Amino acid sequence: MAKSKTSQPVILITNDDGITAPGIRNLVDAVKDLGKVVVVAPDKPQSGMGHAITIGEPLRMHKVDVFDGIESWQTSGTPVDCVKLAVDKVLHRKPDICLSGINHGANHSINVIYSGTMSAAMEASIESIPSVGFSLLDFSVDADFTAARFYVHQIVSALLKQKIDKHLLLNVNIPAVKKELIKGVKICHQAYAKYDEEFDERSDPQGKKYYWLTGKFVNFDKSKETDVWALKNNYVSVVPVQFDLTNYTLKKQLEKKKLFK
Amino acid sequence: MAKSKTSQPVILITNDDGITAPGIRNLVDAVKDLGKVVVVAPDKPQSGMGHAITIGEPLRMHKVDVFDGIESWQTSGTPVDCVKLAVDKVLHRKPDICLSGINHGANHSINVIYSGTMSAAMEASIESIPSVGFSLLDFSVDADFTAARFYVHQIVSALLKQKIDKHLLLNVNIPAVKKELIKGVKICHQAYAKYDEEFDERSDPQGKKYYWLTGKFVNFDKSKETDVWALKNNYVSVVPVQFDLTNYTLKKQLEKKKLFK
Repeated sequence: MAKSKTSQPVILITNDDGITAPGIRNLVDAVKDLGKVVVVAPDKPQSGMGHAITIGEPLRMHKVDVFDGIESWQTSGTPVDCVKLAVDKVLHRKPDICLSGINHGANHSINVIYSGTMSAAMEASIESIPSVGFSLLDFSVDADFTAARFYVHQIVSALLKQKIDKHLLLNVNIPAVKKELIKGVKICHQAYAKYDEEFDERSDPQGKKYYWLTGKFVNFDKSKETDVWALKNNYVSVVPVQFDLTNYTLKKQLEKKKLFK
Repeated sequence: MAKSKTSQPVILITNDDGITAPGIRNLVDAVKDLGKVVVVAPDKPQSGMGHAITIGEPLRMHKVDVFDGIESWQTSGTPVDCVKLAVDKVLHRKPDICLSGINHGANHSINVIYSGTMSAAMEASIESIPSVGFSLLDFSVDADFTAARFYVHQIVSALLKQKIDKHLLLNVNIPAVKKELIKGVKICHQAYAKYDEEFDERSDPQGKKYYWLTGKFVNFDKSKETDVWALKNNYVSVVPVQFDLTNYTLKKQLEKKKLFK
């Protein structure tokens, strides 16, 4: 991987839980010995934002002192906005790698599509910046990030030693168990799983209905090559992700069928 | 494709420009003779929302009388929320097909990732509902939808005559030219293109900085098989889309390299 002019790699860090979340603090701690870390992250939680960008209103960005000795900025934007602002207005160049997270909660299987954490990483990949999103399968603010920090350091240092494709994009999930119980890292594919949604219908004090999104996670994918399988079996799951969403199999079928004129 | 119990297919329609946008009105008009149309759409513009979902606040949904004789609901949610609410709280079943749009403006190439229109369609596909997103390459509220209506009708009626995979997902873009100039429909792959972002930095009356996202579209993909090429050459572009984002090529490489332990 190309190093920055200062010979230290520049590591851009963002997240979707907001700049004050324990997850991003643990991510900074895990990699700060590996290069020059710069943080550009949302000023509030942005979970479930997917690949949202802010186009109808202006963005704010302020320098903050949150991480000891680390240049940090908070923005009013989405995780994707943060990556764009970081490149254009903070770094004035592409970082050598972009890291997103550590997310509080799983981003395996179909969650890659809803996740602000992974969308920030994907935005970097689109912009030719190798990128990794990290998630720990523990929603708690008191979550134990010890194992997560260990694997983050291992994965990022391995990548920085390589010449890596500029579009490299990895979705890394870490099981919520003690480090000693983790069996290692497994390269996986995204499980075909989804949420069976059910809205919780309630009435406000004026008697008007409102709805809370809830849902049950259902995994339809019985393969042992999936991220869901790996995590259940105490592996760290690594899913390589791409932003070309073309379904080439269906493309061939449609070309053959000539359904449309 | 499986028909509903009433023998007429149930067609769910949503969009990201909001329920009062001309695009969704033209979509309803284009397909209302093909089945029972039900509209569940955002109560305000939601462009650029990507696959955002609303998890931090409750949703509102109201029945409205916007399209003559068509059951219609507006929600406070994102395009993806609309699909989820439609299935769980309006239809109480899966529709036979979900249509999203007609978007005011292009959703070709990398835009598929930022687009609320395409994210609504993708959500349907994840939920095993065949789905199509439509976009017209004209941002104007006075855009001429004549050609768009013609191709929407052709594509949807062709699909409804077939037994189609439940995860079918198409990204259809229509060039902003007179119908007579359109050469036909071309099955394409997603062009590798991106936006070169530049934030427009301004100062508010208090002298504090704020930023507007702007950007120049750059197409790196010289293939004649892309949606960008098709649209430039006056074809309607149809890109089959998938929600498995695994990069299988990179997966094999990483398995071979054994970078991580």
